[in-house]
Amino acid sequence: MRFLRYGPEGAEKPGVLDGAGRIRDLSGVIADISGPAIADLAWADGLEIESLPAVDSAQRLGACVAGTGKFICIGLNYADHAAESGLEVPPEPVIFMKATSAITGPNDNVIIPRGSVATDWEVELGVVIGKKAKYVDQAEALDHVAGYCVVNDVSERDFQARRSGQWTKGKSCDTFGPIGPWLVTRDEIANPQNLKMWLTVNGVTKQNGTTETMVYGVSYLVSYLSQFMTLHPGDIISTGTPPGVGLGFKPPQYLKPGDVIELGIEGLGTQKQMVVAD
Amino acid sequence: MRFLRYGPEGAEKPGVLDGAGRIRDLSGVIADISGPAIADLAWADGLEIESLPAVDSAQRLGACVAGTGKFICIGLNYADHAAESGLEVPPEPVIFMKATSAITGPNDNVIIPRGSVATDWEVELGVVIGKKAKYVDQAEALDHVAGYCVVNDVSERDFQARRSGQWTKGKSCDTFGPIGPWLVTRDEIANPQNLKMWLTVNGVTKQNGTTETMVYGVSYLVSYLSQFMTLHPGDIISTGTPPGVGLGFKPPQYLKPGDVIELGIEGLGTQKQMVVAD
Repeated sequence: MRFLRYGPEGAEKPGVLDGAGRIRDLSGVIADISGPAIADLAWADGLEIESLPAVDSAQRLGACVAGTGKFICIGLNYADHAAESGLEVPPEPVIFMKATSAITGPNDNVIIPRGSVATDWEVELGVVIGKKAKYVDQAEALDHVAGYCVVNDVSERDFQARRSGQWTKGKSCDTFGPIGPWLVTRDEIANPQNLKMWLTVNGVTKQNGTTETMVYGVSYLVSYLSQFMTLHPGDIISTGTPPGVGLGFKPPQYLKPGDVIELGIEGLGTQKQMVVAD
Repeated sequence: MRFLRYGPEGAEKPGVLDGAGRIRDLSGVIADISGPAIADLAWADGLEIESLPAVDSAQRLGACVAGTGKFICIGLNYADHAAESGLEVPPEPVIFMKATSAITGPNDNVIIPRGSVATDWEVELGVVIGKKAKYVDQAEALDHVAGYCVVNDVSERDFQARRSGQWTKGKSCDTFGPIGPWLVTRDEIANPQNLKMWLTVNGVTKQNGTTETMVYGVSYLVSYLSQFMTLHPGDIISTGTPPGVGLGFKPPQYLKPGDVIELGIEGLGTQKQMVVAD
């Protein structure tokens, strides 16, 4: 199923796409697409989607999951992206946190923060945790995944690298985490390591990759992270980006007000953001 | 006022200390000590604490604030701690995130994660945001602070420094964030930059400092962070630790099962944790 959240910011309702790609209202069934609902999808068994109320599809979409406690990102998880960043593939996953306050809808504006000189894009496969995970083996790791979504891990390279250590500073600005359009349940994605992904700026292709070239795959990452901390329903793992970020061009290319970013992952839908000044 | 949360884990009730230091039940007044309640303390104006129901004080205390969206930490914010870590004071604050899932009660066990060889302590002044802050000047920054609390920024030095970059990995383990005992409202702390702080392990003093030697003070930090991201009510900023962490001893001293950590900050109460294996 393709779950989503629609409506004005802060007042989103839960929904699901029907067979024709229209939004159906889930608010009579669950309170929200968030930890409690995705921790146990029993309520979705036998759900007759076509009998749910249809919703005008000209709706703002919110982030596809609410109440995320942790927004964990993996750095340098595509060998060729590490190379374009001038860095080596690490011997084990590099993890960092993005502030959950950075989360926005998939088509909301991306705001360039004041003082920014290097706001950049990163299309990434997002993994949404469904079942609490602690010290989980790789073999059973995917049982803890509710589904997948598109993430744009928007990044300010100057804040990230040249403003006194630790990447979180350049990763956590407001609107730097568009999530969605949909939370696609795991059963719909036969193999998360074989999904095409792409990103354009003003219609020009910048990233064109596949999750096949990920260094540490989804099951490995869920297992790995669970050795350090408990993953809870609604937590998001953003699994790294393929080559083609602005930083990697010579000279680097960064976002400016008026730019339009479009990105997508096979089976997970697309996002479209207008870039604006703050 | 000294707010707190008491009761079993996950089912804490809001409370407040009365003049005699006893717990009074606030659950008839507010739902919880969390963002919505501390964003506007109008409900506490004229509150007759002594007429609230008294609670048996032999209670487990939970973290003093619930629903924290961001747990932001400042690195190397005491010049002498930077020196003991073999690092320089940075030209601007180093920030990193601690997973909110690491938050526990002030007297709950600290669990040494599997594979840990270097679990360490850090007494820190915690700042709890009360009012949304974005691009706030230093002069008005404290208006956005609800109050203060004690934080033990428990840290696994091997995970932090030698397991592929970014400190968050060694900072985010479950139970690595004891918070409390109290959220002490800002009006009770005349000067947050003049508070004695201390930490002992098995009764032996390890840290004995004062917030006076903080490099970047509270008002500076709130203003600084708000240039990068919106701070929301309930967010916690842990402002760094003075010298005396286990890493700084020669040879380093790390925690082992059975150790007892006690720590406190002037006016903010004390914490006591038993260290246990996972």
